[in-house]
Amino acid sequence: MTALRHTDEYATSAHYSGTGDIRCDDDRRSLTVGATFTLRSEVRLVDGVFDPATPDLAEVYRPAGRCVAVVDATVDRFHGAAMRAYFSAHGIPLTTMVCRALEEDKTVDAVCRMAAFLGGDGCDMARGEPVLVVGGGVLADTAGLACALLNRRTPYVMVGTSIVSAVDAGPSPRTCVNGTLMKNALGAYHPPVLTLVDRGLFRTLAPEHLRHGVAEVVKMAAVDDEQLFTLLQRHGRALLDTRFATTGDDPALAAVADEVLFRSLYAYMRHEGTNMFETRQDRPHAYGHTWSTKFEPVAGLLHGHAVAVEMALTATLATLVGWLDDDDRDALLAVCRDLGLAVHHPVVEDLELMRLAQETVRRKRGGTALWAVAPRGLGRCDYLAEVEGSLLAEAVDRHRARCGAFPDGGLGRDMYLRDARWA
Amino acid sequence: MTALRHTDEYATSAHYSGTGDIRCDDDRRSLTVGATFTLRSEVRLVDGVFDPATPDLAEVYRPAGRCVAVVDATVDRFHGAAMRAYFSAHGIPLTTMVCRALEEDKTVDAVCRMAAFLGGDGCDMARGEPVLVVGGGVLADTAGLACALLNRRTPYVMVGTSIVSAVDAGPSPRTCVNGTLMKNALGAYHPPVLTLVDRGLFRTLAPEHLRHGVAEVVKMAAVDDEQLFTLLQRHGRALLDTRFATTGDDPALAAVADEVLFRSLYAYMRHEGTNMFETRQDRPHAYGHTWSTKFEPVAGLLHGHAVAVEMALTATLATLVGWLDDDDRDALLAVCRDLGLAVHHPVVEDLELMRLAQETVRRKRGGTALWAVAPRGLGRCDYLAEVEGSLLAEAVDRHRARCGAFPDGGLGRDMYLRDARWA
Repeated sequence: MTALRHTDEYATSAHYSGTGDIRCDDDRRSLTVGATFTLRSEVRLVDGVFDPATPDLAEVYRPAGRCVAVVDATVDRFHGAAMRAYFSAHGIPLTTMVCRALEEDKTVDAVCRMAAFLGGDGCDMARGEPVLVVGGGVLADTAGLACALLNRRTPYVMVGTSIVSAVDAGPSPRTCVNGTLMKNALGAYHPPVLTLVDRGLFRTLAPEHLRHGVAEVVKMAAVDDEQLFTLLQRHGRALLDTRFATTGDDPALAAVADEVLFRSLYAYMRHEGTNMFETRQDRPHAYGHTWSTKFEPVAGLLHGHAVAVEMALTATLATLVGWLDDDDRDALLAVCRDLGLAVHHPVVEDLELMRLAQETVRRKRGGTALWAVAPRGLGRCDYLAEVEGSLLAEAVDRHRARCGAFPDGGLGRDMYLRDARWA
Repeated sequence: MTALRHTDEYATSAHYSGTGDIRCDDDRRSLTVGATFTLRSEVRLVDGVFDPATPDLAEVYRPAGRCVAVVDATVDRFHGAAMRAYFSAHGIPLTTMVCRALEEDKTVDAVCRMAAFLGGDGCDMARGEPVLVVGGGVLADTAGLACALLNRRTPYVMVGTSIVSAVDAGPSPRTCVNGTLMKNALGAYHPPVLTLVDRGLFRTLAPEHLRHGVAEVVKMAAVDDEQLFTLLQRHGRALLDTRFATTGDDPALAAVADEVLFRSLYAYMRHEGTNMFETRQDRPHAYGHTWSTKFEPVAGLLHGHAVAVEMALTATLATLVGWLDDDDRDALLAVCRDLGLAVHHPVVEDLELMRLAQETVRRKRGGTALWAVAPRGLGRCDYLAEVEGSLLAEAVDRHRARCGAFPDGGLGRDMYLRDARWA
């Protein structure tokens, strides 16, 4: 039995801190509290995350005396043996829950099963003990939410195994599950304390998954980093063909791959990091994520293609309002098409669906305005407070006409979800 | 279509703000984000919250153009008509979801049903539009969690209709549901933006619920406010008998009732407010909430009685370590017994259960120590980093012997949950 005096002694976790103040009215009828929560989140590029010579994971889990991990089933098939060998080499006991993580698994039930495994019904994680999450975007969303709910916030380390989870959903604080009518309806802001990005893991990705993931890189290039855009113009196709320089042996291309990943992460986190709890809606990384929230599931598109279709359409919209010239719009279309990403889909011609999307997103963004992201010059962006129906209709017309010049009308390669309605 | 420039224009909600920074390593392999979230939370004592002359609720919901409310079924029976008349008098459309809210309703399913009602499948709340929650502790926990998850944080206003929801669970940020093995296993920190406390609502409380709720007031008195303790010694019984001066007509007692509520709220929020995300474990309001987390459900006790049993036992423990003298311990027992609260229950003699509780709570508090709260002089407290089995056994022995002097062995009035195993 000891009683300690120093406030640091009482820390719930090394990862989070908080302060606050209280003000009390003179009439003793009212009081107001102001409270602040602070977190840190690190992102690192590593080579060979499961190579025993790579210290990053061992440095986190040796002090904890064990590692409790939630692992995507597909990732486990390709990399599970290496992961087990890694922890074994470091003498760190590893307990894993292997989960299927498809879009249809973004459910409250899946989150509850993970929480039961991690929590008092399972591994009994201490509140300061970081969970390890190894997988793609869906697992980042769902396991992240399980960690957010468990003891009201348990830290986790993310190893992003897909492009999306490496540069977007992985380091993102936006954990979630789908509602019955609305994608990502329920969730919490809970970023990983550490995200490890190892492009070596991309070697086992299916080409269609790699392709649609790269849409999120195009996104950050188009609205936040013109140099990144230039890199994609020059090397995008080669990066896709070599799975980010993990096949073949081209050191120069490997350096480009790292630079592309780092620039994309930096662009994303520069905005996300100052707005980690989404208290503002001037968010460049929401580019391509307004109308697509409704038309993606209706058309059965892979997320990246839906994002690319909206990016392309919004670029045409930007030409109508004088934010972008036709050449820059065409440069964006060219980068997308070079990568096999869709730049048009007939679903956007359903203007009632598009209007419904605006209404829903408007409420989701606080109810005061739509704040649709559009490029304002390549590598920069601005926010459309509202988009009237007539303007949107004109943009859709103009965009369809532009894409009619492509032999395929602007469709992408392998753009549909399996079993999708439109496929 | 307009593009606005000012950052305030992009606010998701008037209630929350955030900042952050990013640091980038020279080798372009790593970056670190620091992010901060800030909220404000107000607590107000009001008389006649549903009296049309009371402006508080109308001031919140008139600008929103409507009020969407989640209401406890029992509360709706007693106060639903007054609530509807209030909003009708102010010309504000009211949509309510009436929910049963017993301990067994603290489930993920209940939270999902509420979120569906509030969200895109139901009322389609805008993210900055405050929900109204009217009810006791269970509803505060579950509806608060539904709001926390909906769009990753939707504000809410709490009208606490029980003592617990007025002075403890209501203004608390600790929303939650129960896990299968652990009470309150899953949740989020999400305090109301405004808590309205109207002791007029206590008039309809069952005496056993009023009594067990007062345990949380005794708690804050014992560990944080000696003057509040003195008020309870003098007036506790009269406050209970008059349901906080809402029956009979005693203006002096009414003033005492307000002072007791305000002092209790102030003591609670003074610590909670500077630690709203529980980033530290020096929490006076955790007094009575260490071992009781396990023995409360085993014994089938009402929460307040379980808390009182642990408070009393821990006071005896405090005498063993020299933190409290026997007279002060006996003063605490006297206040509890005067109110009909239990001060002993044979369930605490199950030392294996008590050890298990320590182990679980230790992990829940971060894994570094137990941090059990014990009074160190009346009106102050300190934290026991660990409590060895031998010390706890001695405390239990000593406490049982002390309570053996009471004709009922220290049991409380109406202390069991209906259908409880031990009842």
